[in-house]
Amino acid sequence: MSNNLLAGKVGIISGALDEKSIAWKVAQRAHAQGARFVLTNAPIAMRMGEIKKLSAECDAPIIPADATSVEELEALFSGAQEHLGGKLDFVLHSIGMSPNVRKKKDYGNLDYKFFQQTIDVSAMSFHKMMHVAEKQDALNEWASIVALSYIAAQRVFPDYTDMSQAKAMLESIARNYGHRLGVQKKVRVNTISQSPTKTTAGTGVGGFDAFFDYADKMSPLGNAPAEACADYCISLFSDLTRYVTMQNLLHDGGFSSMGISEHVVEALTKMAETQQA
Amino acid sequence: MSNNLLAGKVGIISGALDEKSIAWKVAQRAHAQGARFVLTNAPIAMRMGEIKKLSAECDAPIIPADATSVEELEALFSGAQEHLGGKLDFVLHSIGMSPNVRKKKDYGNLDYKFFQQTIDVSAMSFHKMMHVAEKQDALNEWASIVALSYIAAQRVFPDYTDMSQAKAMLESIARNYGHRLGVQKKVRVNTISQSPTKTTAGTGVGGFDAFFDYADKMSPLGNAPAEACADYCISLFSDLTRYVTMQNLLHDGGFSSMGISEHVVEALTKMAETQQA
Amino acid sequence: MSNNLLAGKVGIISGALDEKSIAWKVAQRAHAQGARFVLTNAPIAMRMGEIKKLSAECDAPIIPADATSVEELEALFSGAQEHLGGKLDFVLHSIGMSPNVRKKKDYGNLDYKFFQQTIDVSAMSFHKMMHVAEKQDALNEWASIVALSYIAAQRVFPDYTDMSQAKAMLESIARNYGHRLGVQKKVRVNTISQSPTKTTAGTGVGGFDAFFDYADKMSPLGNAPAEACADYCISLFSDLTRYVTMQNLLHDGGFSSMGISEHVVEALTKMAETQQA
Amino acid sequence: MSNNLLAGKVGIISGALDEKSIAWKVAQRAHAQGARFVLTNAPIAMRMGEIKKLSAECDAPIIPADATSVEELEALFSGAQEHLGGKLDFVLHSIGMSPNVRKKKDYGNLDYKFFQQTIDVSAMSFHKMMHVAEKQDALNEWASIVALSYIAAQRVFPDYTDMSQAKAMLESIARNYGHRLGVQKKVRVNTISQSPTKTTAGTGVGGFDAFFDYADKMSPLGNAPAEACADYCISLFSDLTRYVTMQNLLHDGGFSSMGISEHVVEALTKMAETQQA
Repeated sequence: MSNNLLAGKVGIISGALDEKSIAWKVAQRAHAQGARFVLTNAPIAMRMGEIKKLSAECDAPIIPADATSVEELEALFSGAQEHLGGKLDFVLHSIGMSPNVRKKKDYGNLDYKFFQQTIDVSAMSFHKMMHVAEKQDALNEWASIVALSYIAAQRVFPDYTDMSQAKAMLESIARNYGHRLGVQKKVRVNTISQSPTKTTAGTGVGGFDAFFDYADKMSPLGNAPAEACADYCISLFSDLTRYVTMQNLLHDGGFSSMGISEHVVEALTKMAETQQA
Repeated sequence: MSNNLLAGKVGIISGALDEKSIAWKVAQRAHAQGARFVLTNAPIAMRMGEIKKLSAECDAPIIPADATSVEELEALFSGAQEHLGGKLDFVLHSIGMSPNVRKKKDYGNLDYKFFQQTIDVSAMSFHKMMHVAEKQDALNEWASIVALSYIAAQRVFPDYTDMSQAKAMLESIARNYGHRLGVQKKVRVNTISQSPTKTTAGTGVGGFDAFFDYADKMSPLGNAPAEACADYCISLFSDLTRYVTMQNLLHDGGFSSMGISEHVVEALTKMAETQQA
Repeated sequence: MSNNLLAGKVGIISGALDEKSIAWKVAQRAHAQGARFVLTNAPIAMRMGEIKKLSAECDAPIIPADATSVEELEALFSGAQEHLGGKLDFVLHSIGMSPNVRKKKDYGNLDYKFFQQTIDVSAMSFHKMMHVAEKQDALNEWASIVALSYIAAQRVFPDYTDMSQAKAMLESIARNYGHRLGVQKKVRVNTISQSPTKTTAGTGVGGFDAFFDYADKMSPLGNAPAEACADYCISLFSDLTRYVTMQNLLHDGGFSSMGISEHVVEALTKMAETQQA
Repeated sequence: MSNNLLAGKVGIISGALDEKSIAWKVAQRAHAQGARFVLTNAPIAMRMGEIKKLSAECDAPIIPADATSVEELEALFSGAQEHLGGKLDFVLHSIGMSPNVRKKKDYGNLDYKFFQQTIDVSAMSFHKMMHVAEKQDALNEWASIVALSYIAAQRVFPDYTDMSQAKAMLESIARNYGHRLGVQKKVRVNTISQSPTKTTAGTGVGGFDAFFDYADKMSPLGNAPAEACADYCISLFSDLTRYVTMQNLLHDGGFSSMGISEHVVEALTKMAETQQA
């Protein structure tokens, strides 16, 4: 499907790890819609074999950058502008990592050095990106910046541990920097709060399958797949959504608005019967 | 437990139907804390045998009033002030009824006359109460008005049908009239969004047991019982909470902040195993 | 700007009164994007001279319907399907009217008959539309239904009086019917909470100019214009947003996320200086 | 005013710097209500002359502790239990500090080392406190933990810069640890989102007077004073609020629910007139 929605627009897409990544799909859709862009990822996170395929497919160079380093982000933003021949129209922040989650540290027993890393990589990097963009005056008017978030920012998903705090902070940065870039340059900044998604990163969270299924059953439309999330990003990069800013946008098949669903009632009823039997 | 928290305070308590009612417990606790008050209920809703016991126990006269009738509310508010010897310090709105829920009408097939009644009884009555209180200048400075709500105002509980709209409207009225009475008389207006409660009214909702159990399992503290809700009302009527206004206050053992709980995961996992076996 | 985003899609657009109407712009944009549709409005609200221009411009027939009448909505939905040759892909609900606002009734002194009308026209009509659509099985899978709302549903704008309750109820209906249509037919239902807009209806609210300017100064991007709102509707009707449902989507240039702005601080500081001088 | 609401209860109160501090008032009110407690503050933040007065007044020993240090918090919690003769019933977290705010660093130009400090002191310390409490099994059933927050967690106050992120994270920690302690020990955890308050810390924020006045004018009851916040803490420490948990509780005279107020309209109108003249 292409409607040339992003014809003439240029940007940066971070976080494409492999073809399950949401960012990977965003790159494919943005390319199909006429955008040109640079791909980026942390040097240690890149699976070069994989991302080179995407790079070729989308005719998009790769500029590795550790998003916790202001200097590397400066090189990324100046490199991107140089390659693309001007200022940017869109940026995707799809970066998140928690050593505590990876090592399945319990929320009552977090490693506080890891916690700082979680915050640094998953939230503060978003501030640094916009700081660099502002400093380099790297954004066109009406540019659109999107970061991917999760509803654990608002509600408790026990296994998500310190990533919950990182996402709450990420959404807060979107509001605060969105104000700033809005006033300065009519730039909009939003987060998409996406359904649990079977990406390589997502499935690392403990109990992922259980809460994937729960969310799927709870959501009237089912969990939003990665492809649909990519489409939603395209709509937010396009000129159709110019006045949407400083929002956390739920893209979740309705999950966040559900109190209880028939499926869940059924499951609980069955369990109660089994226990009585 | 009494701490004389409401010593010298006078008010109106609506909605005490029988001893399972939240309003019934509020009356008992308010009495124990030194308050004097008038009880009220709709003539058709009153079970005279029951409420007379409460009246005797709390030394509180009963003034019946249909809360959809401005005239009857006028008689209630003037009668209450006369009996209590002055203006009021607190009012409890605990009034809700949906003919659509009672007749188990599906949300796709509501009777629109019933829908209007639901709104009229369960939400507009709250506006009328405050309208009458304002007109009669019936409230002391720093008076506290509380209405009971439910989280269906924010999230979907399919069997709650048009009561969801009534509660959304009730909470909106609390904000709007709270502004008005705050500016005029330093009066505060709030809603308490209470856990599902095994009252005579509550258990009339279809599938009540299932969602009571679900909420209980989902809430870290379990569902809040009616007695605890009464205690919370006392705190809101007291002078300890003078600057809390125009809020919807969740009293739910943590339910509203949960995304997923271990219990629910367990139930879903078991159901999945059973289905595969 | 056209990208054929709605090629092959058909729908109903309500509420186009004159060329300042948001619905008017939605019709123009939807037409430009390849959609076909039927226009509708209340017989008494129609300015036939005006809407006929739009009808001609968009090659869209007009089917008048009083949205408070289930029968007239039935005629609308069956007429639309007949004319368009099949089920619908999108519906715009842009209907709101408060006799209390029109007559500048104070919030403390509302006419309760008017209040019922406000609710009936501005909120219950949305339920009726979806009820009729469901009954006639009038919607294609992945159809998108959008209603226009305002932030007075969440926060107090004193002059907006009972329309605040109507919008709170409208958003609640979107969630509840969104659940139902989502499960049944993968249909999504959302509300757009739009900036104050200088439409013929909007400017009837008391103190409109003051709050238009306030919102404009408070919003980092300024108030969202009607054209931008129409673009946003297009994005929600398109296939780019399939998993967004049961949401209230702020389209407000950032207003809702602002706590204080430099402009407002400046105004308050100046007033304080003037008062001291 | 004393009602012996906290008779028999023991706890820890952090953050009393001088008599303008909210924590100072909480200590006085808790003492008046019959509680016994330990005072604590960071060694570098303590003004010994001042806090000794409070210590004497409340018969409460001081145990200094840097809340970023797990070891010092361990000494605090074990020392407090030893002194008080058992497990704790309440804890107040009133700790916040941003070097970026102090040095009036612009949000676009934050020092990232400072940012980490802000997070470490103002948010992560709350997690550490509960981690230590859990590890030492230091809390009685139905204990109540409260941290002080600010609405900058939800909305943009430009001068509050990185403290906005710290507060968003603090509230997220309250939810996540509230779940954990709720399930384990029936303990509740909440944040109070307090009006801007003229404390020694508060007034250090740039433009404080302007936003204090703005909030005061916008709030139907005016800004909540420190004394009222202390009263509210007492209600949350008491047994009247046992089922309130994982909530962010607005204590703000209604500010958060206002869209526009007459005062602000008046100020803007005057400014517009002045500019035209």
